Amino acid sequence: MKGRRLLITGASGFTGRHAVAYFAAEGAEVTAVVRRSEAEASVFPAGVQQYICDLGDRKAVAGMIGEVMPDQVLHLAGKNSVPESWQDPLLYMETNVMATLYLLEALRFQPASRILVAGSRLKYRPDSAAGPPHPYSLSKTLEELVSLAWGTLFKQPVLMAEPSNLIGPGPSTGFCSLLAQHIVRSEEAAAKGEARPAAFRLSSRHVLRDFLDVRDAVRAYGYILDHGETGKIYRIDSGAQRELGEIAGKLLAHAAVPVEMDWGPQHAEEGQAAASPASAVPAKASSASADREVLQEEPEYNAAILGWKPGIGLDRSLADIIGYTRAGKEGRI
Amino acid sequence: MKGRRLLITGASGFTGRHAVAYFAAEGAEVTAVVRRSEAEASVFPAGVQQYICDLGDRKAVAGMIGEVMPDQVLHLAGKNSVPESWQDPLLYMETNVMATLYLLEALRFQPASRILVAGSRLKYRPDSAAGPPHPYSLSKTLEELVSLAWGTLFKQPVLMAEPSNLIGPGPSTGFCSLLAQHIVRSEEAAAKGEARPAAFRLSSRHVLRDFLDVRDAVRAYGYILDHGETGKIYRIDSGAQRELGEIAGKLLAHAAVPVEMDWGPQHAEEGQAAASPASAVPAKASSASADREVLQEEPEYNAAILGWKPGIGLDRSLADIIGYTRAGKEGRI
Repeated sequence: MKGRRLLITGASGFTGRHAVAYFAAEGAEVTAVVRRSEAEASVFPAGVQQYICDLGDRKAVAGMIGEVMPDQVLHLAGKNSVPESWQDPLLYMETNVMATLYLLEALRFQPASRILVAGSRLKYRPDSAAGPPHPYSLSKTLEELVSLAWGTLFKQPVLMAEPSNLIGPGPSTGFCSLLAQHIVRSEEAAAKGEARPAAFRLSSRHVLRDFLDVRDAVRAYGYILDHGETGKIYRIDSGAQRELGEIAGKLLAHAAVPVEMDWGPQHAEEGQAAASPASAVPAKASSASADREVLQEEPEYNAAILGWKPGIGLDRSLADIIGYTRAGKEGRI
Repeated sequence: MKGRRLLITGASGFTGRHAVAYFAAEGAEVTAVVRRSEAEASVFPAGVQQYICDLGDRKAVAGMIGEVMPDQVLHLAGKNSVPESWQDPLLYMETNVMATLYLLEALRFQPASRILVAGSRLKYRPDSAAGPPHPYSLSKTLEELVSLAWGTLFKQPVLMAEPSNLIGPGPSTGFCSLLAQHIVRSEEAAAKGEARPAAFRLSSRHVLRDFLDVRDAVRAYGYILDHGETGKIYRIDSGAQRELGEIAGKLLAHAAVPVEMDWGPQHAEEGQAAASPASAVPAKASSASADREVLQEEPEYNAAILGWKPGIGLDRSLADIIGYTRAGKEGRI
């Protein structure tokens, strides 16, 4: 990794910030691609080159790749909110499919450059009669298809990753971060003598999910970029399924004050999904029946076969999320 | 069909012109969508409304649909040259996928409007390890996926058609029209005492193809628009596989002068594809091995189950092609 030119898209996002920090520390020459200039320049470590580029602008993408000439590309940019994808499905197609294509097309002229595209577990089977469960799923499914297709059509070194639910400190909109925010708001309200915030609704407490620390996922991306086999999809997960209720209990144990919770109906598995608009636990896809529409097959490859394994336990992830959330705007990852 | 507002995209194309003429004659209120104003306004019958719209312009498409408020849409627009798709693969994704999406998205707000999207037999299996044989195949495969997905996601009446190789009088770039042009050029050269044109290369004479008259296909589109089941893919074909060499022989029988032909190597099935850049017989996909990469499964539905059947025999199609080609620029369909 040391000395290699690594271009990271979506660099100001939750995973992107961790990726920039990790690979810069590893000695890569990191170019952090952001849509607009970050107000807080300090979001990236010293030495990281920030590059402002709208990935929806084909010419701008081609210009950027021609200028940076990256050895490796970690493509994390994209939209990932299921509810938002219902509101503006075309935006999801443009952002998750066309922007990826612009990148792949520009990289045709840098044939040695390896690109790792971050996919999603929420893809669907294109041959299923039911169709995709939501536009987000459609967009990520097509993103995977075009990425692998560009790889085979143009002999490009394209790799895919399918991370499980990533958690950790930083600007995540996932379930853990949203509950942590509720806990911290409750603590702040108590400190100011204000009324408690309205209850956090979690009616899917028995739903099982694999949670992985984002920092472990970023290390896995490094393994895949360096050692992965072109054209393959690598799954990245902790290997342990946890009930959402268990995770919630562990987070609530950090609370310094009582926190209002709505645990939903008794038969939780019959209830609606978590109220969270989290990408990781989408409302439209997390009921047991909706889950069956989503492709859950084991892919052939897991990052573990490249020698990677998770290093950060769930308890530390959750403690770090609480710590980051308490630090508020001062929080740095 | 009578009195219904029917919007036809790709109206100035080979199939589009026939579709406009047929549905106008049937009494539909036809809006013929073209990219730019047709120099020959007479290309459309009187009473047909011509609408200039760049389907790659999302806002323009939304405006057009809101203005025309079609009862039915026949979406024929698209790029269909395999060699060109290798030259500019992104253009194929933008034209065949995004433009279709803009149309589908605009039609979300006209929920009763039925849309028939013309697909291709050259799609590939998204789960195949080999990937698509060419960018055109990728674009048509994704076009089908997004069309059917939009239908299920947003409960839109979306239908798909998969025509076989369409032939007939008009501005086709298919094998039959290209050979007819060679024949007519040979006749013209002889009349002027000029040298014969260079030989027409056909080294895939034993390759089997289903050829259907474009006017029959257009009638099938009408059956599907009126009676087809939403979300289904209807195959449209003559039901008869013919060797390219047989078709060539029938066309050459029309020639008034000797015509130079290059029939390729003896073991034609081992040779390269037809020299033609025809969409129907793409160079990159018509060798026997490439064909196997292409999805050739029978879909569940055929336009025949709606009561449609072909009415124009091969000999008439070929005679009409020769007649159209001899008429030159004066040729009208």
